[in-house]
Amino acid sequence: MKKISFGSDNHSGVHPLVLQAIERANEGYCFGYGEDEYTEGVLGQIEALLGNDCKALFVLNGTGANVVSLASFLKPFSTILAPSCAHIIEDECGAVERFSSCRITPLAQEGGKVTPETVKAQLKFGDQHKVQPAILSISQPTEFETLYTVEEIRALADLMHSVGGYIHVDGSRISNAAAAMNVSIKEMIADTGVDVLSFGGTKNGLLIGEAVVIFKLENNREMAENLAYIRKQATQLYSKNRFIAAQFEAYLKDDLYLQMASHSNRLAKYLEKRLGESSAMQKGVYFTQKVETNGVYISLAPLTEEQMNYLQEKYIFYFWREEIKEVRLMCSFKTTEEDIDCFIKDLEELLS
Amino acid sequence: MKKISFGSDNHSGVHPLVLQAIERANEGYCFGYGEDEYTEGVLGQIEALLGNDCKALFVLNGTGANVVSLASFLKPFSTILAPSCAHIIEDECGAVERFSSCRITPLAQEGGKVTPETVKAQLKFGDQHKVQPAILSISQPTEFETLYTVEEIRALADLMHSVGGYIHVDGSRISNAAAAMNVSIKEMIADTGVDVLSFGGTKNGLLIGEAVVIFKLENNREMAENLAYIRKQATQLYSKNRFIAAQFEAYLKDDLYLQMASHSNRLAKYLEKRLGESSAMQKGVYFTQKVETNGVYISLAPLTEEQMNYLQEKYIFYFWREEIKEVRLMCSFKTTEEDIDCFIKDLEELLS
Amino acid sequence: MKKISFGSDNHSGVHPLVLQAIERANEGYCFGYGEDEYTEGVLGQIEALLGNDCKALFVLNGTGANVVSLASFLKPFSTILAPSCAHIIEDECGAVERFSSCRITPLAQEGGKVTPETVKAQLKFGDQHKVQPAILSISQPTEFETLYTVEEIRALADLMHSVGGYIHVDGSRISNAAAAMNVSIKEMIADTGVDVLSFGGTKNGLLIGEAVVIFKLENNREMAENLAYIRKQATQLYSKNRFIAAQFEAYLKDDLYLQMASHSNRLAKYLEKRLGESSAMQKGVYFTQKVETNGVYISLAPLTEEQMNYLQEKYIFYFWREEIKEVRLMCSFKTTEEDIDCFIKDLEELLS
Amino acid sequence: MKKISFGSDNHSGVHPLVLQAIERANEGYCFGYGEDEYTEGVLGQIEALLGNDCKALFVLNGTGANVVSLASFLKPFSTILAPSCAHIIEDECGAVERFSSCRITPLAQEGGKVTPETVKAQLKFGDQHKVQPAILSISQPTEFETLYTVEEIRALADLMHSVGGYIHVDGSRISNAAAAMNVSIKEMIADTGVDVLSFGGTKNGLLIGEAVVIFKLENNREMAENLAYIRKQATQLYSKNRFIAAQFEAYLKDDLYLQMASHSNRLAKYLEKRLGESSAMQKGVYFTQKVETNGVYISLAPLTEEQMNYLQEKYIFYFWREEIKEVRLMCSFKTTEEDIDCFIKDLEELLS
Repeated sequence: MKKISFGSDNHSGVHPLVLQAIERANEGYCFGYGEDEYTEGVLGQIEALLGNDCKALFVLNGTGANVVSLASFLKPFSTILAPSCAHIIEDECGAVERFSSCRITPLAQEGGKVTPETVKAQLKFGDQHKVQPAILSISQPTEFETLYTVEEIRALADLMHSVGGYIHVDGSRISNAAAAMNVSIKEMIADTGVDVLSFGGTKNGLLIGEAVVIFKLENNREMAENLAYIRKQATQLYSKNRFIAAQFEAYLKDDLYLQMASHSNRLAKYLEKRLGESSAMQKGVYFTQKVETNGVYISLAPLTEEQMNYLQEKYIFYFWREEIKEVRLMCSFKTTEEDIDCFIKDLEELLS
Repeated sequence: MKKISFGSDNHSGVHPLVLQAIERANEGYCFGYGEDEYTEGVLGQIEALLGNDCKALFVLNGTGANVVSLASFLKPFSTILAPSCAHIIEDECGAVERFSSCRITPLAQEGGKVTPETVKAQLKFGDQHKVQPAILSISQPTEFETLYTVEEIRALADLMHSVGGYIHVDGSRISNAAAAMNVSIKEMIADTGVDVLSFGGTKNGLLIGEAVVIFKLENNREMAENLAYIRKQATQLYSKNRFIAAQFEAYLKDDLYLQMASHSNRLAKYLEKRLGESSAMQKGVYFTQKVETNGVYISLAPLTEEQMNYLQEKYIFYFWREEIKEVRLMCSFKTTEEDIDCFIKDLEELLS
Repeated sequence: MKKISFGSDNHSGVHPLVLQAIERANEGYCFGYGEDEYTEGVLGQIEALLGNDCKALFVLNGTGANVVSLASFLKPFSTILAPSCAHIIEDECGAVERFSSCRITPLAQEGGKVTPETVKAQLKFGDQHKVQPAILSISQPTEFETLYTVEEIRALADLMHSVGGYIHVDGSRISNAAAAMNVSIKEMIADTGVDVLSFGGTKNGLLIGEAVVIFKLENNREMAENLAYIRKQATQLYSKNRFIAAQFEAYLKDDLYLQMASHSNRLAKYLEKRLGESSAMQKGVYFTQKVETNGVYISLAPLTEEQMNYLQEKYIFYFWREEIKEVRLMCSFKTTEEDIDCFIKDLEELLS
Repeated sequence: MKKISFGSDNHSGVHPLVLQAIERANEGYCFGYGEDEYTEGVLGQIEALLGNDCKALFVLNGTGANVVSLASFLKPFSTILAPSCAHIIEDECGAVERFSSCRITPLAQEGGKVTPETVKAQLKFGDQHKVQPAILSISQPTEFETLYTVEEIRALADLMHSVGGYIHVDGSRISNAAAAMNVSIKEMIADTGVDVLSFGGTKNGLLIGEAVVIFKLENNREMAENLAYIRKQATQLYSKNRFIAAQFEAYLKDDLYLQMASHSNRLAKYLEKRLGESSAMQKGVYFTQKVETNGVYISLAPLTEEQMNYLQEKYIFYFWREEIKEVRLMCSFKTTEEDIDCFIKDLEELLS
C-alpha cells in the first residue's frame, strides 16, 4: 500500500528483529501448545520483568487477552465496570459478554479515564435483583492514548480491593505508557496492586502475540491455576507457541519494546508540535485530547468533504466523533518525521 | 529440541516458503482486520479453489475455526452431533459449548467415523424437552487420520439436509485427505454438499492461520453474512490479517499445500511399510488403525515401561489408549526417511 | 403482615376469583407441560383477545417472560436496546445476558421513556467490531408507571422495522396501561406492530403466571416455532400448566384483568389528588413523576430520618433516588381509600 | 380429563391441604421475593429437617432447581458428570448448558444408576485441552424410580470429595426415596456428604415449588452466598414467595410429604403385585426395571398397535424404549387401587 498510515499502529507490520527471531525459532521440532521449555523460559523473563509475583501465559490477540483476563475473575452474576469508551465495550463485538455471559457496566469517562468517585458510585452489593460489581477494567494508555498516573492506578486498585473486587488493565499499548511515563511496567502495574494485565505486543511491532499476566499469586492463586483452561476454551491457545515466545524474547532483549514505543511516542509529540505551529491552527484545526503517548486527536472541522477526501487519498486515518470531524492520528515504530512533515504540508496547503 | 518428533504435525514449525511470504508481506502500511485488498484477493483464490459458491474468512487457529463454523449454524436449543472422539469434544476444553452454550451430542464411532445409521438414530425433532439436532460435525481425515470416501460424505450431507440440518467438516488436515484420495477439496467438500468447512493450514506447515468457508450461499446466505461478527466475537479476528493472507497465498501457489501433505502421507506409508516388515511385529507390536493419511497408530504392548522411557528420550509421540500402550506416530512435511529408519532400528533393538 | 403496603403491587396476593379458578382446575388428571386441551383453549382466548395473528405461551414469571421473548429474536452478536432504567437492566440480575450472552445497550430515558431520536442514534450496522442492534425493548407502562401513547409505540416499532429490527414490550403491568388509556391491548400492541410481548399477570392479582406472545406470524414464524424450546431451556416451562391456564381464564372472564387494573389506577389517582391537596405539599413534598397508571412517585425531602422510620413502621414503600428521598407508592387491586387516607393523615401529622 | 393417568405424578394436581395453605397465606400484604419473615421461617424448618448445616432457598420448578444447584458449583471449564439417562441430559432441553455453558458428560448407567468405577474413569485432571470434572449429579430415586442405598450415595460423595469435587442430588422425588427406604432425607443426603440437593415438591402434590439446599456451609459457604443471585439470574425467583413457603409448611406438617410419597410407593407396589399375578405375565408382559418407589416399568410387547391404542384411550402412560414397547406407569398421591384394578382387568382382557 502506498498510502502513509496514521490509521492504527497495527498498520505498520513487524519489526525486523522480531521477524528474525521467528526464523531462528523455526529450527527442529518443538512441543506444541506452550508445553516446551523455550516458551517456559520466555514466560519466566516476562514474570521477572514484572516482579516475579505473577504468572504469565501467551495468547493470540488483544481481544483474547481481555476475555481470558476478565473471565478468570468473574462469577455468573458479576458485572465488569469499564469506561464507556473501553475497547471491550466499543471494539470487541461483545466477545467478553459472549464468553462470560456477564454484563459490562459502562462508566462515564473523561479523556478515556474514570475516577474513583465514578467507580465508587457503582459499588453496591447485596441486592439479589442486581448484578454485582467484581472487577474494574481500565486501559493504560486509555482508548484516547492518554495516561493514568501511577497514583491514579493505585487509587483505583485500592478502591476495588477495599470491597473485595479486582482491577484489570488492558495494556494493548502498555509499553507506550511505560516509555512515556519513564516508569517500568512493574512499577505501574505490579506495584500498584493490579490483579491482571493484558500485556500487548501486536500494536507495537510484533507479528502476533500478547500475554495475560495474573499478579499477587497468594490472593489470586485459583485464577492463575485456571488460566490455561480458560485460554484454551477462549480459543486463544496457539499450537506453535514457540513462535510467540521467540517474538517476546526479541521484544524484551535490549528493551526493544521500550525503544519502539519511545519512537512512536516521540513521533506523536513531533506531530503535536508541528501541528501546533502550523497555520492550520489559525484556520480552525484544534486538538481534542491531550497527546500523552502515540495518538494525536484533532478536529479537522475547517476541511470540506472534498478536501477531506483528498487528504484520505494520501493518508489513512480514522474518524472518532464525526460530528466535529475529529480524527485520530496514530504513530508507530515505523512512522518517520518525513511522513509527518508531508502530512502537515498537505494540510496547510489545503487550508491556505 | 534434539528429539525427533512423531508427536504432532504441529511440532514441525513452518515451511521456508511460508516464512518468506510473511517477510515479503511486511512492506509498507496495510489496513488491519482483513479490510485490505490483499487479504480480499487471497480469500478470492481460496473461494475459486473451492468452487466459488462459497465465502471464506481467515481465522487464527483450529479451535477458533470450529467455534466460528458451528456457531454460525446454531439456535439456542440446537445440538451438534459429532463422533465421540471429535476434536471439539476431546481436545478443545469445551470451547464450542462455552461460545454457543449448545450441547455436543457424542455419537458412537469406528475408526473415527460415524455412519448414517448412527446419525439417523439421533434425528428426532419436536419434543420441547429435548435439544434439537442442527448440524453434524465430522473430521476429514478423522481424529485417527482415517478417511471418509466422497460418497460417505455425500451420504451424511444428504441425510442432514433431508431433515433441514447442516454438515460441518473439521478439516484441520484437509490437505492430507485431498492428497491421499487424489481428489480436490472442491470435489470432496463443495460438491458433496458440505455447508461449512474449517480449512486448516497450521498443522501442514503454516506459521498460523486457518480459514472458515461457508458453502451454498443461496441457502446459507445469512450464515455467511454473520460470519465476520461471529469471528470477532470469538476472538478470532487478527489485526494484521495480511500475514495470514500471505501464508495462504504461498500455500496455494504451485499446490504447496498438496506437496507438503503428500510428503507427510508418503512418509506415514513408509513408516507403515517399514513397521510391517520389521521384527517388532513378531514381538507383538501391531497396528490399531488403518494408515490412510499421515498418522500411524500402533500398540507397543511388548515394551516394558523402561523400554518405553528409553524410546521417549529420543522420540516424541503421544499415547492414545494407554491400557494397550497405543501410540500415535505423526508424519509432517519435515519428517524424513532417516527419522523413520532410525525409529525402526531403535524399536527392533529394544525388542531383540 | 399488619403493615399497609405501597411497596409493590405484588405484595397484595391473589384475587379470590383467581384462587377459585385454581381450585376448580384441580379435578382429575391432566397432561403436564401445557400439552393439554384446556391450556390450548385458554391460550386461544388470549390470542383472540390480541387479534389472532399471534402465538401465546405461558411462562412462570416476568423475568422469564422477558428472557424468552428477547432470546427468540437474537443472534449471537446482537444487542438489545433498552432505556437505562429498564427492568431487564436494573432488576433481573443479568438474566437476559446470562441466557443470551448478548449485550443490553442502555439508552437515555426521560420518565422511563425513550424517543425515536435516541434509538435512531444507536442504529448503526456493518462494523465487524461492534455488536449489532436487533431489538428494542420498552416497558408499557414504563418502569415509572408512565405511558407511551399508541402513536409513540407505533413510531418506535416503525423505526425498528425500517432497519430490519424488532420491538419487544415488557408488559408486566400491561393491563394497567390498557385500563388507563382506555385502549385495548390489541390496539396498543398488535396494531402498532409490536413483535413480542411479555403479557404480565402476577403483578395484577394472579398467583403466578405470565404469557409470552409473538405477533405477525408471517414475519416471525421461526421465532414462534422456537418458542417452546426456548421456554423449556430458560426453565420457564411449568409442569402443571393447567393451573396457569385456569388463572388466565378467570383473568380474562368479564375483563377481570381490566377491573383490577382500573381499581389500582383509580386508587393511584386518588392518592395523587389527596396528596396534591394535602398540607404536605406546602412543607416541601413534591411529585417526581407523572401519575399515569398505578404508581405515585414523590419526594419526601422534608422528612427527617426519624420521621421516615416512623412512617415505615406503618407503611411499606421503597426508595428510588435516595438523595432526594424519592419514594414509590404503588396501588394494587387490594388498596383501599382508607389505606390512602390513613397515609395522608400520618404524613400531614408528621410534617405539622 | 376423564382418563386415568399413570403418565406422570405431575398429572395429579394438588393435595387439598396444600391448596388450603395457599388460601390461608393470601391474607394481608407481604413482602415479595422471599424477603419476608414467613418465608424465612419455613426455610428454617426445611433446614432443621435436613440437619441445620445447610442453606435452603425456594425455586419454581425442577429444571430451575437443577440449573441453580449445578451452576453454583461450576467454573467456566468444568464438566458435570451424570448418568446418560439423567433428567438434565434427556428432559431439560439443554437448560443447564444454556445457563452454565458447561458440558454434561454422560456416563454409562444401569437401572438409572452409576457406579464409583464409572465415575472414577472420568476423574482425570490437568490437561489444558480437556474440560475438568467438577460435580457428579445423580437422581434419587433415579430416572427409573430405582434407588441408591445410603452407602452407595456415600461412596459416590466420598469419591468426588477425594478429588476436590462435589456431588448433587436431583431429588425431584426425594420424598419417595425417603419413604421407600424408611430413611430420613437428612440421613440420605446431609449425612452422606451430598453438597447440594434439588428438593422436589411439585411431583408429590404441591401446586408449584421446589427448594435448592446447599450443605456443609463451612466448605460451601461461597456457593451458599451466591445462591440468591444465581436463582434470580436463572429466572427462578418468585415474586410472591410466601405462596411457596405456605405449601412447604403444609408439606412438612405431620410429614404430609412422606404420607403422599408412601401412598404413591404403596400403590406402585400394589400395581407390581397385581401385574405379577396377572395372566398378562404368561402372555409376554414383563417388568423392565425393579419397582422401588412409585414407578413401574413393563414391556407391553404382546400388545398389537390396535390394542395399545385401545388401552391409551382409557389410560395415560408414556413409552420409554419404543422398540420393546416399554412403558412407564407412575403412581401418585391420587392413584387408587380401583385405578389399578381397572387397568389390570383391561390388560388381561386385551390379552385374553
